[in-house]
Formats: sequence, C-alpha cells, structure tokens
Amino acid sequence: MTQFTVHSTLDAIFDLTVGALMASGANRENAEAVAEVVWKAERDGCLSHGIFRVPGYCDALKANAVNGSAAPKVIDQAPGIVRVDAENGLAPLAMKIGRPALIEKAKSQGIATLGIANSAHFAALWPDVEPLADAGLVAMNFVNSRAFVAAAGGKRAVFGTNPMAFAVPRPGKPPMVFDQASSASARGEIMLAARDGHTVPEGLGLGPDGQPTTDPAAILKGVQLPFGGYKGGAIAMMVEILAACVTGADTSLEGEAAYTGHGGPSAAGNLVIAIDPSKFGNDRFLERVETMFESMLADEGVRLPGDRRLVNRKQTPESGVHTDKALYDKVVAIRDGG
Amino acid sequence: MTQFTVHSTLDAIFDLTVGALMASGANRENAEAVAEVVWKAERDGCLSHGIFRVPGYCDALKANAVNGSAAPKVIDQAPGIVRVDAENGLAPLAMKIGRPALIEKAKSQGIATLGIANSAHFAALWPDVEPLADAGLVAMNFVNSRAFVAAAGGKRAVFGTNPMAFAVPRPGKPPMVFDQASSASARGEIMLAARDGHTVPEGLGLGPDGQPTTDPAAILKGVQLPFGGYKGGAIAMMVEILAACVTGADTSLEGEAAYTGHGGPSAAGNLVIAIDPSKFGNDRFLERVETMFESMLADEGVRLPGDRRLVNRKQTPESGVHTDKALYDKVVAIRDGG
Repeated sequence: MTQFTVHSTLDAIFDLTVGALMASGANRENAEAVAEVVWKAERDGCLSHGIFRVPGYCDALKANAVNGSAAPKVIDQAPGIVRVDAENGLAPLAMKIGRPALIEKAKSQGIATLGIANSAHFAALWPDVEPLADAGLVAMNFVNSRAFVAAAGGKRAVFGTNPMAFAVPRPGKPPMVFDQASSASARGEIMLAARDGHTVPEGLGLGPDGQPTTDPAAILKGVQLPFGGYKGGAIAMMVEILAACVTGADTSLEGEAAYTGHGGPSAAGNLVIAIDPSKFGNDRFLERVETMFESMLADEGVRLPGDRRLVNRKQTPESGVHTDKALYDKVVAIRDGG
Repeated sequence: MTQFTVHSTLDAIFDLTVGALMASGANRENAEAVAEVVWKAERDGCLSHGIFRVPGYCDALKANAVNGSAAPKVIDQAPGIVRVDAENGLAPLAMKIGRPALIEKAKSQGIATLGIANSAHFAALWPDVEPLADAGLVAMNFVNSRAFVAAAGGKRAVFGTNPMAFAVPRPGKPPMVFDQASSASARGEIMLAARDGHTVPEGLGLGPDGQPTTDPAAILKGVQLPFGGYKGGAIAMMVEILAACVTGADTSLEGEAAYTGHGGPSAAGNLVIAIDPSKFGNDRFLERVETMFESMLADEGVRLPGDRRLVNRKQTPESGVHTDKALYDKVVAIRDGG
C-alpha cells in the first residue's frame, strides 16, 4: 500500500513525536513519556504502535479528551499496592512515575501490584513491563479499553480488546515479553483490511446482524470475538476485572459511553503485577527458564514470543526506520500547527 | 456408556474416598484433604475431578510416587510470599495448610502469593481459589503437570495441560470461578474418545508423525496442542514459568521424566496470587463487577463460567450423586484392600 516512505533516525521520530504532542497541548513531561514508548515501538518494528498512533494521541489532546498537563500522583496504598491517579492523562507518564515504587515494593515484599486509573492507554503493553523484567522481576500487565469485543457466546460488545502482557528476565539477553490482545485479532488489523478492501479470516467477528462474517467493515459495525473461544473469553473477562474493576478505572463499556469520537485513546485501567523470583528461596530461576526455552526452541517451528522485535531492535538504531510519507507528513503538519 | 450407576450421598463419597486413600497408604490428614476436593467436585457435578480421580491417587500412593504421610511445611518467605514445601505429598493438604497464611498476607499487604513445590496436583483448580474469593479476595491459580502439550508451532510435548483458574467474590452469591486448561482440550476428553472409539474435533493434537489428526489414540501417542493458537501457547508458557520456575517445582518435562507410569499425579508446581480489592481505595469493586456481569448476561447466549457447577451445587446435597458402578466397585475394592 505504502508507495512513498520517509527515512528517519529513531531520535528524529522521538523529536517529531514530542513536537506534535506539544503542539496538540501536551506539556513536555507528558509528551516525552509518550514519545519514549513510540520510540521503543519504532525501534522494535511494532509499526502499529509507533508513530502511527501519534495522530490519535494528538486528536484526543486537541479534543480535551485527555489532559496533556496531567501530573500523575503516586499513592502508597498498601505495603504491596502502588496506585496512580493519572488525572485523566496519557498512560505512559503515569506508568513511568509509578514504576520505581512498584519495583521497590516487589523487591521488598516479594510481590506487588500497580493500579492505574483515570488514564488513557493507546500504546503497546510490552514497554510497560520490559523494564520490570530488566530489574529482575516477573511481570504481568492487564489493560482494558473501549468496548469492541463480545463475551464468549455473545453478540454485543462488552470488553475492550483487553490485552495482557507477561515479561520474564533472561541472563545476558533482553527479557522475553509477550503482549497479546484477548480478541481474536487486533482492531487495527480489521481496520486495515476494511481500508484496503480485503476480507478477514473467519472467527474474528460478527456483523451488526450478529452473524459471523469475513467482511471487515461489517465487523467494525458489529463486534469482534475473543480469541480461542470460551477460554479466550474468560481471559478477556479476567483482564476487564483486573484492569478496570480492581483499580477503580472505567470499564470498557463506561469508556465507550464516555468516548467523544476523537479517534484517540479512551479512559481505561491498567493493573501490573510484579513478582521477585529471587525471593522464593530458589536461586536457579533464570537457569530453569532458559532450560525450558531451550526445550521449546529445540522443536523446529517454535519461536519465542517477541523474538522478531529483538531482531529489529538490533538493526534500527543503525538503519533507521521508514515511515509512510502520508503519515509522516500528517505528523509534521500537526507539529507545525496544522 | 455407563449402564449401571450407584447412588450415594456426598458424605458417603467423602468417606469412601478417605477409606480408599488410607488403605493405599495416606494418613488421615492427607486423605481428608484430598477427599474434601473430591467431595466438592462431586457436589458441583465435575465428575472428571471427583471419585473418578481416586484410583489414580491410590495408584500413586501404592507406587510410593507420592508421600501419603507428607506434613507440608509453611515457610514465611517474604512479607508477600508464603511458600509450602509439600514434601512430595498430594497438593490438597499443602494448599489447605498454606491458604490461611496467604489470606492473611493478602489482607495485610494488598497482594500476596503462595508457591507450592514438591507436590502432586491431580484435582480441579477452582476448589483451591474459591475459598480465597469467599474471603473477599480476587485470586489466580497456575499449575503445571506432566509434558503433554506442544508449544505453539511445535510438535513435541514441553508443557503440561497447564490449567489456570481465576476467582472473584460476588455479594450474596458464590464466587465466579473459571478453571481452564491451556491445552485445546482436557486430556481426559481425548482418553474417553479413544476408549469409546470416537474421533475428536480438529485442532486438539498431532499424531506421533507430527501431523494434525482427529484420531484420539494417535494424539495420546503424539502431542496435544494449546488452545487458541499462539496466544494460548503463550498462556501455557506463562503458566509453566509461574507454576514451576518461580516456585522451584519440577517443570512439566522434569515431571514427565520422573513419572513411573503409576497412572496418578506427577510432581508439579502451583502458584496462587491473591489480591485484596478493598485495599485499592475503591469501595465499589463488588458493585462494578456485578454491573459488568449483568452487561454480559444481557446478551442471550452468554453464560458466566462455572454456572453449571453452581446449579449442581444446589441439587446434589439433597439428590445425592450417581457414580458409574464399575468405578464405584473399584474404589470400594481399594478401600477393602483389593
């Protein structure tokens, strides 16, 4: 589809993102926190969560749907709980500010959790938890969003695409991190197919008539389905309960009701759990995980989740990245006051 | 299949189970802890985890593969961690002994975890976590087992069927608990199809040649597959890391290597995480979960996980249960020294 691309360094993407967000109303601290996750996504070749998201962030800022000057407050809620009130701001700054307290609590208590409410999450989840695994922790992350996905057996949207991520440290290597929606496919995948006039595989969604369809435009008017039948539906429900109900954030239905059509992120919740495996009286944790990974990889056809990201990560700091020219021009225009 | 059944009260099932386990070498404390989870499974109509499991428990005891006199030790490992060394015994007593400390820690810290190593788990997971939700906690449970399941994209067994469970309290009602394998189907389902000469649906497993098959006997010689493709494979891997690597228990491959063919449970690990939602400064947790459940159930065709168990639970204390006569006779023979 993309006929013309613009070549940039990762640092240029960072600066452009900061400029566009600040021109849309974010202060420098919020803009840089978002730009860091955009930079990481571009570095790892996750284009759907890179600069591609910047116009949406800017739209939400311009519509005053999110607070670009939010100063998230860290609340020492309990010995094992850090809570952040994100003040209706974008999630990256809330996560950046809350993470050190989560790490400290997990290392002193053995397990701790970070709950973020009143934030708008529009990023990949792996950048939230990879720094926790870098600090030696095993981490899980649960995020809800606007209601797009039916419960197992249902025809009406009740859950967000409700992603979860899981991170594990590795000796001398970047952590293994998986990050996956609880829906059968990313919403962006269905939107791209609709734009390009393709059908999508069976099982991704139902049309507005409640019938299975491979027409992406019909699914966008109907509902997406959870992955893996009723088991994936149970995971989607678990993510909703942990991310929204436990933290006190908006549920996906509440986020949908409050959404004003700006095209950016809606209010949602975020629950991170971090465990210090060194506190279990077992000093062979890292070695045992590596042995298990080796057993998996001895089987031809098996890859570790996230391994393509790590390949890209080695190349892009040297090679730079290529961005669709129309997208690039759009973000430049936002930065320049367009 | 079952032509003749024996009708019993739930208490008779409990007593029969205790008798068979003690005749096989368990002491009373271990036998009663196992009989409690068998009793709960029969009460809730989970026949695959009821008295059906007793011969396997007894085989493992007679083969000295598990220690029927295990006295699990509770270790106060960290402010947020309870660890139980199950002394190579059956998991129910270890769980029963460790649970009060987990509840106390979760309520004081906001979040806590219980890790059990050196135990043999052969039961459903929901009886482990339902008491935590009864105490007002949100709980997750992860258990690994013998290697039966390939990683996503693979053809060799590296994971157990690796179930996970999730429990949430409800006001004035039993908790919502789901309990699901990370494999596309329970192993027992494939074994029953093989016994009865049926085929199984596509996607459950591969034959010894690494090719997809609907022949259950071929899958039992080959490998099972994770549910939901690579996303379910990621869940299976997460369960393995949490249940085995974090706790220091045997991985599913180690459990498989140590298995002596007795037909009972193998050594595995168990990690439970419990969160006190009342500690998040949000007193509407229960109400918000109920609102979400109502939204789900407003959609015709949606059921809450576990709701069939709760229907059975209302009936069986009065109606009693029906057990396959051959199975019943087998357990009676074990109890009577057969």
